[in-house]
Amino acid sequence: MGKVTAVSPLAPAQFPDLPVIDGVRFATIAAGVRYQGRTDVMLAELAPGSTIAGTFTKSATRAAPVLDCQAKIGGTSGAGAAILVNSGNANAFTGKGGVTAVEAITKAVADVCDIPQSRVFTSSTGVIGEPLPHDRVTAVLSDLKAKLADDGIADAAKAIMTTDTFPKGASAKVTIGSKTVSIAGIAKGSGMIAPDMATMLVYIFTDAVVSQPALQEMLSKHTDTTFNCITVDSDTSTSDSLILAATGASGVDASDSEEFSNALHDLMLNLAHQVVQDGEGATKFVEIAITGAATDEDAKTHAMAIANSPLIKTAIAGQDPNWGRVVMAIGKSGAAADRDRLSIRFGDIEVAKDGWRSPTYSEEAAAAHMKGQNIVIGVDLGLGNGKATVWTCDLTHGYIEINADYRS
Amino acid sequence: MGKVTAVSPLAPAQFPDLPVIDGVRFATIAAGVRYQGRTDVMLAELAPGSTIAGTFTKSATRAAPVLDCQAKIGGTSGAGAAILVNSGNANAFTGKGGVTAVEAITKAVADVCDIPQSRVFTSSTGVIGEPLPHDRVTAVLSDLKAKLADDGIADAAKAIMTTDTFPKGASAKVTIGSKTVSIAGIAKGSGMIAPDMATMLVYIFTDAVVSQPALQEMLSKHTDTTFNCITVDSDTSTSDSLILAATGASGVDASDSEEFSNALHDLMLNLAHQVVQDGEGATKFVEIAITGAATDEDAKTHAMAIANSPLIKTAIAGQDPNWGRVVMAIGKSGAAADRDRLSIRFGDIEVAKDGWRSPTYSEEAAAAHMKGQNIVIGVDLGLGNGKATVWTCDLTHGYIEINADYRS
Repeated sequence: MGKVTAVSPLAPAQFPDLPVIDGVRFATIAAGVRYQGRTDVMLAELAPGSTIAGTFTKSATRAAPVLDCQAKIGGTSGAGAAILVNSGNANAFTGKGGVTAVEAITKAVADVCDIPQSRVFTSSTGVIGEPLPHDRVTAVLSDLKAKLADDGIADAAKAIMTTDTFPKGASAKVTIGSKTVSIAGIAKGSGMIAPDMATMLVYIFTDAVVSQPALQEMLSKHTDTTFNCITVDSDTSTSDSLILAATGASGVDASDSEEFSNALHDLMLNLAHQVVQDGEGATKFVEIAITGAATDEDAKTHAMAIANSPLIKTAIAGQDPNWGRVVMAIGKSGAAADRDRLSIRFGDIEVAKDGWRSPTYSEEAAAAHMKGQNIVIGVDLGLGNGKATVWTCDLTHGYIEINADYRS
Repeated sequence: MGKVTAVSPLAPAQFPDLPVIDGVRFATIAAGVRYQGRTDVMLAELAPGSTIAGTFTKSATRAAPVLDCQAKIGGTSGAGAAILVNSGNANAFTGKGGVTAVEAITKAVADVCDIPQSRVFTSSTGVIGEPLPHDRVTAVLSDLKAKLADDGIADAAKAIMTTDTFPKGASAKVTIGSKTVSIAGIAKGSGMIAPDMATMLVYIFTDAVVSQPALQEMLSKHTDTTFNCITVDSDTSTSDSLILAATGASGVDASDSEEFSNALHDLMLNLAHQVVQDGEGATKFVEIAITGAATDEDAKTHAMAIANSPLIKTAIAGQDPNWGRVVMAIGKSGAAADRDRLSIRFGDIEVAKDGWRSPTYSEEAAAAHMKGQNIVIGVDLGLGNGKATVWTCDLTHGYIEINADYRS
């Protein structure tokens, strides 16, 4: 059960066919930052006038490139822009050396791409506490620049992987008036998570025209209900970064488009689900749906208490409809709950009601639901209208194997 | 690594020789509540005038016997008292039936022992959500009463076990003036934890004279630095209960004795450590010592973030001095931290300093420390004088095996 496999059993059948986004070009290269025999640096070049929004880890020990990006997001400029990402080394907890590395790379990218340094955004993902050999990155920039191509996004998704078992991509097309705009995004991450070799990075591109404030507002709002609603193991990375760029190449303004905002949300949720589906050792994809809480915030607190409970995650791995552990998690979460108003369901099966086992409960039916690959745990608090849904995976021998059995 | 063994590798060599506490007698019996072929009910009868203090789980879904005990603690009475505990069934999330069961048992114990019902304290530990067959308990009360003996405390420690791999006991003698008082305590628990079959129960007895308010004050204070500073898997039980009874049989007043209070603290810490040492699947006993935090509260938040991190607990299981994961946990905890002032040590080995790997760091020395059975992770925040120490164990295949591989 839960042994490590080459590709997650929850992986999509194939990488999606992502549309070309006018105004952005991609290149990847094997720079040998840490890994051998694979690409490990990706460059995305954005057309002049692109607007850029971002959300980042709230970790107090966040990495140097994260701090640099955060300082630059929100600025407006008519110039082009660039995103450069390396895998293999997170440039995190690297003291002043980390800042020097970011400075060297962003300056070199600005020179090669002929853009202001304030428009260069970088991310690093991989081992923590090791100095980033930034000269290996700057040495390949001219070659990267020469390789830029419209259709390089699938290769980009591969170059940013660390412990991921599959590359992650998603796209959408939105009709605004009589015209169509496209959105395409890529992500890496095998959890929220593991600062050692697996942080979460997400890059989303659109050819729509979206003002920077509108872009940031949409991104921040949707992050709360997508990437901030997933967890693999409750451990938050020092490098999590999500950058959304609108090139405007389509000439279609989507700043006020609800359809565009909705499509963006769905694309972000799709990528977030793929990160959970590549959770370390995962064999089950789990939705936790809370209703009837006193507030939405309480609902999310309860949902995360369930999603992060080792006892619930191991019960799911063992295909055990152990609803007593759900009662436990609700009780410990700290958010408002009344034991005697609780109801709990697994899939469509009511397992508990009014503070006791449901009179219609069938252990056999609940056990059958737990045998599936997609598990739904529903809890109604019976207190108000607060609701939240989060997604997680099970906790298996595979997680222990990846994180304990092998020295990193 | 971390396979389930008959007895935890961290268990003490033997159960300690506990002193007789004048004024309390014990009896145990096999009532067949759920287990067969072992004792599963214990009765402790306390002399008239005994004072009783208690601390309990803060879970919003706490069990019926917990609510009943909480309502009774703090009352004063010259009458005798009794503690009755069953294992095998937690009488938790059992609706009105749970209240009926507590009422039936406490009334029957009051009748058999000829004491007021308000002086009968009960605990139940085991499976959740199943009706407690309370008639099996009340049926054996006369036999229990007949078996009461001064020296029954070791048997009592066994009768309250569920998934525990060893019984837990500790004792102390304190000289006050020219006289000596004794303290003896027993505990069960294989984590904070598992509401399914392993909650934490602790009973401590002394022959000292201690007023109820003084007894409660000592107990509450010491609980914060002992049992509230341990974690196996961050999951909080619906039944955790700790009851401390002072029979006064020695005639020696310890209400204002600092020595007595200190001895009680040390005994509680000893029992708390034994619970961690019986943590499900544990192979390492881990101390997390935080200094230099902005406040003591911040220090505890950081300590618990480290102690509950699955990535740190698996790294310890893998004997990996993965200090990057400690940086991650400090970053995510939410308490104040300045990355560039952090220092981290494993045992006596400084691994990180001023926001970077220590210049004196030796991977070999750190790896050697991680091979031991007792691991110490020290973190200095460099911000103030706040400090806290907590204890936990590693996260191994054994934990997955106990909680996922077998249906409960």
